[in-house]
Amino acid sequence: FTSKLPDVGTSIFSVMTQLAQEHEAINLAQGFPDYDPPRPLLEALARHVLTPGHQQYAPMPGLPRLREAISQQTARRYGYTPDPATEITVTSGATEGLYAVMAAVVRPGDEVLLLEPAYDLYAPAVRLQGGVPVYVPLSAPDFRPDWDRVAAALSPRTRLVLINSPHNPTGAVLSADDLDTLAGLLRDTDTLLLSDEVYEHMVFDGAQHNSVSAHPELRARAFVLSSFGKTYHATGWKVGYCLAPPTLTAELRRVHQFITFSVSTPTQHALADVVPDAALYETLPAFYQQKRDLLRELLAPTGFELLPSGGGYFQVAGFGALAPGLDDRTFTRRLTQESGVAVVPLSAFYHDGHDAQLVRFCFAKTEATLRAAAARLTGLQ
Amino acid sequence: FTSKLPDVGTSIFSVMTQLAQEHEAINLAQGFPDYDPPRPLLEALARHVLTPGHQQYAPMPGLPRLREAISQQTARRYGYTPDPATEITVTSGATEGLYAVMAAVVRPGDEVLLLEPAYDLYAPAVRLQGGVPVYVPLSAPDFRPDWDRVAAALSPRTRLVLINSPHNPTGAVLSADDLDTLAGLLRDTDTLLLSDEVYEHMVFDGAQHNSVSAHPELRARAFVLSSFGKTYHATGWKVGYCLAPPTLTAELRRVHQFITFSVSTPTQHALADVVPDAALYETLPAFYQQKRDLLRELLAPTGFELLPSGGGYFQVAGFGALAPGLDDRTFTRRLTQESGVAVVPLSAFYHDGHDAQLVRFCFAKTEATLRAAAARLTGLQ
Ligand SMILES: CSCCC(=O)C(=O)O
Ligand SMILES: CSCCC(=O)C(=O)O
Repeated sequence: FTSKLPDVGTSIFSVMTQLAQEHEAINLAQGFPDYDPPRPLLEALARHVLTPGHQQYAPMPGLPRLREAISQQTARRYGYTPDPATEITVTSGATEGLYAVMAAVVRPGDEVLLLEPAYDLYAPAVRLQGGVPVYVPLSAPDFRPDWDRVAAALSPRTRLVLINSPHNPTGAVLSADDLDTLAGLLRDTDTLLLSDEVYEHMVFDGAQHNSVSAHPELRARAFVLSSFGKTYHATGWKVGYCLAPPTLTAELRRVHQFITFSVSTPTQHALADVVPDAALYETLPAFYQQKRDLLRELLAPTGFELLPSGGGYFQVAGFGALAPGLDDRTFTRRLTQESGVAVVPLSAFYHDGHDAQLVRFCFAKTEATLRAAAARLTGLQ
Repeated sequence: FTSKLPDVGTSIFSVMTQLAQEHEAINLAQGFPDYDPPRPLLEALARHVLTPGHQQYAPMPGLPRLREAISQQTARRYGYTPDPATEITVTSGATEGLYAVMAAVVRPGDEVLLLEPAYDLYAPAVRLQGGVPVYVPLSAPDFRPDWDRVAAALSPRTRLVLINSPHNPTGAVLSADDLDTLAGLLRDTDTLLLSDEVYEHMVFDGAQHNSVSAHPELRARAFVLSSFGKTYHATGWKVGYCLAPPTLTAELRRVHQFITFSVSTPTQHALADVVPDAALYETLPAFYQQKRDLLRELLAPTGFELLPSGGGYFQVAGFGALAPGLDDRTFTRRLTQESGVAVVPLSAFYHDGHDAQLVRFCFAKTEATLRAAAARLTGLQ
């Protein structure tokens, strides 16, 4: 048997979660909450599961009432009302959304611009289509894009630019100016934009999320991804969505219909019930900021160097003072095995294994979990 | 914007379901039950939705306890015990399984042998990978494969042969001899096999399902797809699985991890609870045979010519006596608009629109639905 696949490896999240389980380590590696979705959402799903007639195929683009709710929520949040019929597609998590965008638009040899560190599913999704990732580095400590470098990396073969704010793994957030600058760079090109906004409801310190959906010029060429799993602490439900103008949505659906066809019907009904309740996401910035602050407070005395985190699930920290000269994969393995805390080495988010002695902590955990992890990390020095 | 996609069209099922809704027609077109899953399964899902800790990511290949249950069920049914760790992958419906197999193994220019009529998602899934479908016709009225024609169509470039039993759209079932003959044809080749067995539990008239899983020689080169949606009347839950030897499973998972990553955790827990209950599938042959028989009895006086159906959800019927000379798409449209019954024109399952004045009825409907549809069909002559 000869493999056709590029060497895409195994997702770092599967690797670390498995290592965590083997060593009974506290899993601050894979990004998922260890608390449950809001009670009204759980009860809505339990109710729809027992509702006759809600267990068969949903329409391919998503349940109309869920798309309607998404449209109204987008209007409320970003002042733009996407058309449920032609601009919204419900996907099997943002992961399927990402894969489907690549399958829909990336041709063999097309360049896709990624800012590094980059979420570890981006490059494989590009390469599985025969696309060529072009990497532009983001620089520590704040990991803000250097738009001159982006401009220099754009070429007539750039099919797609991928941005992600709040950013995984670094927690960096894009400013309104960043979006304007990007719009200027893409003006007069055919280059498309993929904006991964799965952490859109988790921006800290009073800042706002600058969504591509709120930017008329950018959104005209963009696929915007969101994730109900992230917004409602239900990563295991695997429902997300993609907003895009009608031409791009039509293209996306042409592949979505063959990739998964449709998404769980009772789950979509349950989400449609709760999406109109703005309180469920308006409370998220404070909820997650408190977790970030707690983790930072707990890590401060351990010897980790804390980088800024402006949004999302993650806190990046340097371990150079704790283990001078050690590479981040060895450090991470030892931390899991010997201290019982699993994190992700930041080199996993670089195509060339770039290693600056940094690791990623997930703070989407209960206070008890964060405290237990910190207790295991004291005395590292 | 220039499309990269082959002209894959819109799935006939979406088209017909939408037309049915517009005309308030009874939908015997798209294959889904209009009754609910077994109560124990519904209650299991409602329970797991309310179980703390069951709402986050499942492991990428599927929940261990569900894979274990699948392994034991396969052993009971087919005398073969697949290894849950290396031979079973839970997918977002058999649709994702099918797409992932194609993404995992079909290279640009690879030939994939399809028997026509063929389920309308097969050829697009091949073509989206740059593969080339090679079609071998099945002949009415019984639609059994002519293995000499299959042998003639095989070439050194045949990467994959796709079989489907019970067959959609015709209800034809493969015999043990068919599988042996196919094994002989593939012996000494590197050609892989994809066996779509989503209707494995619905074989009529006392016949047995001949699974590739029960055939040691074939299963060594095969991906075998099944669908919990079909088995448990829950097409909207979107859970299926793929059995394959370790090398092929490894390849499948390399793409599955990037296509959807994982499948709904509470849904997998619920399925793991009921899969061990053999009564839930052992009753299916009689349950569906009764529906097939009822539909045949109801259609007999309407002037449709009934072809044999040995398994699955579907009954093919000729309308030549009702509308001599009319093409099947026009007939189907009129039947939907004027008689209020939606079916699928068989030409939708042929790459060249081959039209023998046949349509496909779905009998996975309550007795009341089937009777109501038949009442609308009387007086067609
Ligand atoms: C699909 S598993 C990965 C979860 C996640 O988003 C992360 O850990 O970054
Ligand atoms: C994915 S919708 C199609 C349902 C089906 O299997 C059929 O109608 O043949």
